[in-house]
Amino acid sequence: MAHIELQKDLPGIRGPMTFRPETAKPLNELVDVLLRGPHTLTPGERELIATYVSARNDCRYCQTIHGAVAAHHLGGDEALVLNVKRDPERAAISVKLKALLVIAGKTAESGRLVTAADVARARALGATDLEIHDTVLIAAVFCLCNRYVDGLATWAPDDPDIYPQRAALIAEHEYTASTVTASPGISPLHS
Amino acid sequence: MAHIELQKDLPGIRGPMTFRPETAKPLNELVDVLLRGPHTLTPGERELIATYVSARNDCRYCQTIHGAVAAHHLGGDEALVLNVKRDPERAAISVKLKALLVIAGKTAESGRLVTAADVARARALGATDLEIHDTVLIAAVFCLCNRYVDGLATWAPDDPDIYPQRAALIAEHEYTASTVTASPGISPLHS
Repeated sequence: MAHIELQKDLPGIRGPMTFRPETAKPLNELVDVLLRGPHTLTPGERELIATYVSARNDCRYCQTIHGAVAAHHLGGDEALVLNVKRDPERAAISVKLKALLVIAGKTAESGRLVTAADVARARALGATDLEIHDTVLIAAVFCLCNRYVDGLATWAPDDPDIYPQRAALIAEHEYTASTVTASPGISPLHS
Repeated sequence: MAHIELQKDLPGIRGPMTFRPETAKPLNELVDVLLRGPHTLTPGERELIATYVSARNDCRYCQTIHGAVAAHHLGGDEALVLNVKRDPERAAISVKLKALLVIAGKTAESGRLVTAADVARARALGATDLEIHDTVLIAAVFCLCNRYVDGLATWAPDDPDIYPQRAALIAEHEYTASTVTASPGISPLHS
């Protein structure tokens, strides 16, 4: 049971977002710019960063739904998402993304752990300043989301089939759509 | 030196916010709703939550500037801010705020640490669902900001007099004003 009175049919972040639309709006906009906006990293790569951080923070809801969104963008490759969560260095992703995930993982623990050498490695493998900036900010934003979801003790669906279904919806829409059309069962777009 | 190329005269979060205005806008809006919007918690109380979390995360820039903003709202009581950072249970704040700071501190470490008993205690001391929600979200947002500031290795001013001066400006304006009027030396409003 959630720590505060939330709409019971909305899992994860969708409960508190519906409870407090004033904060949901800018938070969704921030996530949309980072994960869905025009970018040199693909939506799949950016969702992998979000998923990896959420897994490190042990947030069941966020890692499952964003993992499903990542898999959707990656042609349904759920095994790749699992490999990235377990051991990114051995996963079938670009060396640049591996270097960015090191930065994301350290940011998730503490921003102070990110070293000039970590950033130099990413840059040598082709990462731009914008990609480095956005990796740090995506990691930071999911440290927010993970704490928001778990700090209020929201629930996560047990049925594993629900996540890919919702992921397909999310992949076709912006996250922001969730807050303005949050009718349960009709347009439950947000993760 | 920051990990990416930032405008050198802008300390802390102001460098990356100027680098990436597309993400600065919703992030500032989120902070404005939480810290400056209409509320049953005073701006001083909400800035204390932000300061306490930033101190626990060891983010020098955030804890110093938000501590200065808190002190400004609290009639210049810098000692109270210091006491809250060190040991909130013994500080001269309300018992309700003490209970909310417990929730904030646990959220900063991991949302999963917040217990039903923590929330029940806050509620018994007068906290509403909105206050509990916003405490968790303020803590989560500052986990974001702390990681954003430190993950990119931004700099913080050494001169302690700079923070109260800027705090007075911030207290009179919304955080959002920083991004649209970020001319250095003229309207450096953001923390």
